[in-house]
Amino acid sequence: MNPTALGTADSCLIIDLGAITENWRYLDRLSAPSVMTAAMIKANGYGLGADRVGMALAAAGCQRFFVASLDEAIAQRHIFDDEGYGNVPITVLHGVHRGQEAAFLEARAVPVLNDLEQISRWRLFANKTGQRLSALIHFDTGMTRLGLDSAQTDWLIENPQALDGLDIAYVMSHLVSAELADDPMNTAQIERFSEIKGYFPGVPSSLANSGGCFLGANFHFHMTRPGIALYGIDPMGKGISPLKPSLRWQARILQIRSARAGERVGYNGTHLLDRESRIATIGVGYADGYRRQLGGKATVRIGNSVAPVIGRVSMDSITVDVTDLSWDDRKCETADLIHTTYDLGRMASDADTISYEIMTQLGTRPSRHYTV
Amino acid sequence: MNPTALGTADSCLIIDLGAITENWRYLDRLSAPSVMTAAMIKANGYGLGADRVGMALAAAGCQRFFVASLDEAIAQRHIFDDEGYGNVPITVLHGVHRGQEAAFLEARAVPVLNDLEQISRWRLFANKTGQRLSALIHFDTGMTRLGLDSAQTDWLIENPQALDGLDIAYVMSHLVSAELADDPMNTAQIERFSEIKGYFPGVPSSLANSGGCFLGANFHFHMTRPGIALYGIDPMGKGISPLKPSLRWQARILQIRSARAGERVGYNGTHLLDRESRIATIGVGYADGYRRQLGGKATVRIGNSVAPVIGRVSMDSITVDVTDLSWDDRKCETADLIHTTYDLGRMASDADTISYEIMTQLGTRPSRHYTV
Repeated sequence: MNPTALGTADSCLIIDLGAITENWRYLDRLSAPSVMTAAMIKANGYGLGADRVGMALAAAGCQRFFVASLDEAIAQRHIFDDEGYGNVPITVLHGVHRGQEAAFLEARAVPVLNDLEQISRWRLFANKTGQRLSALIHFDTGMTRLGLDSAQTDWLIENPQALDGLDIAYVMSHLVSAELADDPMNTAQIERFSEIKGYFPGVPSSLANSGGCFLGANFHFHMTRPGIALYGIDPMGKGISPLKPSLRWQARILQIRSARAGERVGYNGTHLLDRESRIATIGVGYADGYRRQLGGKATVRIGNSVAPVIGRVSMDSITVDVTDLSWDDRKCETADLIHTTYDLGRMASDADTISYEIMTQLGTRPSRHYTV
Repeated sequence: MNPTALGTADSCLIIDLGAITENWRYLDRLSAPSVMTAAMIKANGYGLGADRVGMALAAAGCQRFFVASLDEAIAQRHIFDDEGYGNVPITVLHGVHRGQEAAFLEARAVPVLNDLEQISRWRLFANKTGQRLSALIHFDTGMTRLGLDSAQTDWLIENPQALDGLDIAYVMSHLVSAELADDPMNTAQIERFSEIKGYFPGVPSSLANSGGCFLGANFHFHMTRPGIALYGIDPMGKGISPLKPSLRWQARILQIRSARAGERVGYNGTHLLDRESRIATIGVGYADGYRRQLGGKATVRIGNSVAPVIGRVSMDSITVDVTDLSWDDRKCETADLIHTTYDLGRMASDADTISYEIMTQLGTRPSRHYTV
């Protein structure tokens, strides 16, 4: 990237849509040809831009998309309509809530129905409009978060007419510990899910999130629903991943200055300089999603040099010790915040969290650039 | 708030612009009438919306605004122009960078010049356009982040003609530990700043951030620049604050379900239920800025009941134990994430960070509602 491509912004995200579509194709090949591979683009496409990611994956052949809320579905429907993907189903994981029915229909959004109340609401609305309406039914198999609990599941099995007027596209559940291949919970959930879906013959089924895609054919059923893996993060956390990273993050070097041994850097002077130093101040801070906990832990790459982040992370900037920067690299105007020896997983670990949170907490202030 | 006011969103921020303007007036009264009280609206107005906060404060009489980057200045200039505040100066803390000169002029943005390179760039541009251009000069007095270092400061004092063609609105510096009233660094910075500004007679000066507003008249100089305090957070971290909270955060109760003793909740089943329980799943997660570290620590308020967040925080939802909810409160459709016994400071502390990071990391997915 040309140093001046930052333009009026101080940091930018460079998002590789080609990598994301390649990852989707890779995940699609993990399951049989008859298994659909949907895509999770909730949380603004895991922070990278649901609009652009959605379009790229729709163009690559993805035939179903998942978002969390009706708001997200409406926004994505506008994008898809404008781009000629008006018929691609957008599924809302959180279901349909009181007063939202008409807006669901208008956005052609498909709710995941998580309890009997949501089922009843959608069915009443179907009857009122005189249309058969599409939905997914979510049965909880151990997550205790969303989906019918065991009493409601038993009731629905005994009262299948409660679904009259609805087209049930899939029955689904969600894995608790898919990233741990040998966790006994995975087998328990497969067994419970298989038992439940047996009561809904002829209805397609879906269980696998990103981790589930890697757990083998008995987890794939009729549709997988990868999320984090699309964006290049290996859900199984293995060292060598077949997935392609999709994110670069660069920031402007705002200033390089001298400081003396004994001087301190940043808020509360937490970093003491033990030598005559050169300090670069870089235009990214915790308001951009560069976590505050990274102060004193992270590194950035400037040209071919790696430099440590020293002192506290500020709201809008970080300070980096560039005393040892090579002569050539002193001409650089930007720094890479994610680099070969400091990937997203390492950043997440230093911030005491997981890559998912880093990605979905990327701020709006970094400009976004897409490559294909 | 009416439960259905969430509309198509699953969580919403309710932002009290009246509280923010009251806080600004309170901070303004802390200093002498001759001292201007500017406003920090960088990082999208500390997450609450620079557009609305900026307009409210401009209407209240605030005469200078600070942002971090040129991008932020351009966005705010459009807002101010549309609303009749075209002449209010917008000052860019990160300074003017290569290739940005014309865009600064077009946005009528005033750079804070942080080193000799930035000074030279702005002066050359002033000469080229034949206009005297406004700027602030930032001298570092101990932060070692932005501003002229001691060698550059000495050089500028000896070569004041380097500022010819520029209108220096203020000389400024930034406090390292203002929130600690008795930190000797405060006095050291006052002394150093007073010494430097003595070399620029007739030029107004500014040192105080939010904390500095509370440190007494000798910190106020000609302009204070509060940020976090505007939004109702006491920078001094005292128990009783004269500042008014400006933020409420509510989320939709997506589902309430039963679970048995011995069942586990959320990813990796980290929370074990020791009794027959009722669990509410609430539509806010770490992608919204509800930090992942809050799992097992935070509480929410539902009606008049307080309920603990159990298990892991998910990307889009949290799970709450509502077994002990009062009968009346079972009708509630929303939960308050910030409440009397769980304020923003407590949330920040449980997430191992400061209120500033929580606020500036609020996601775009929560809808924003403003009250005046």
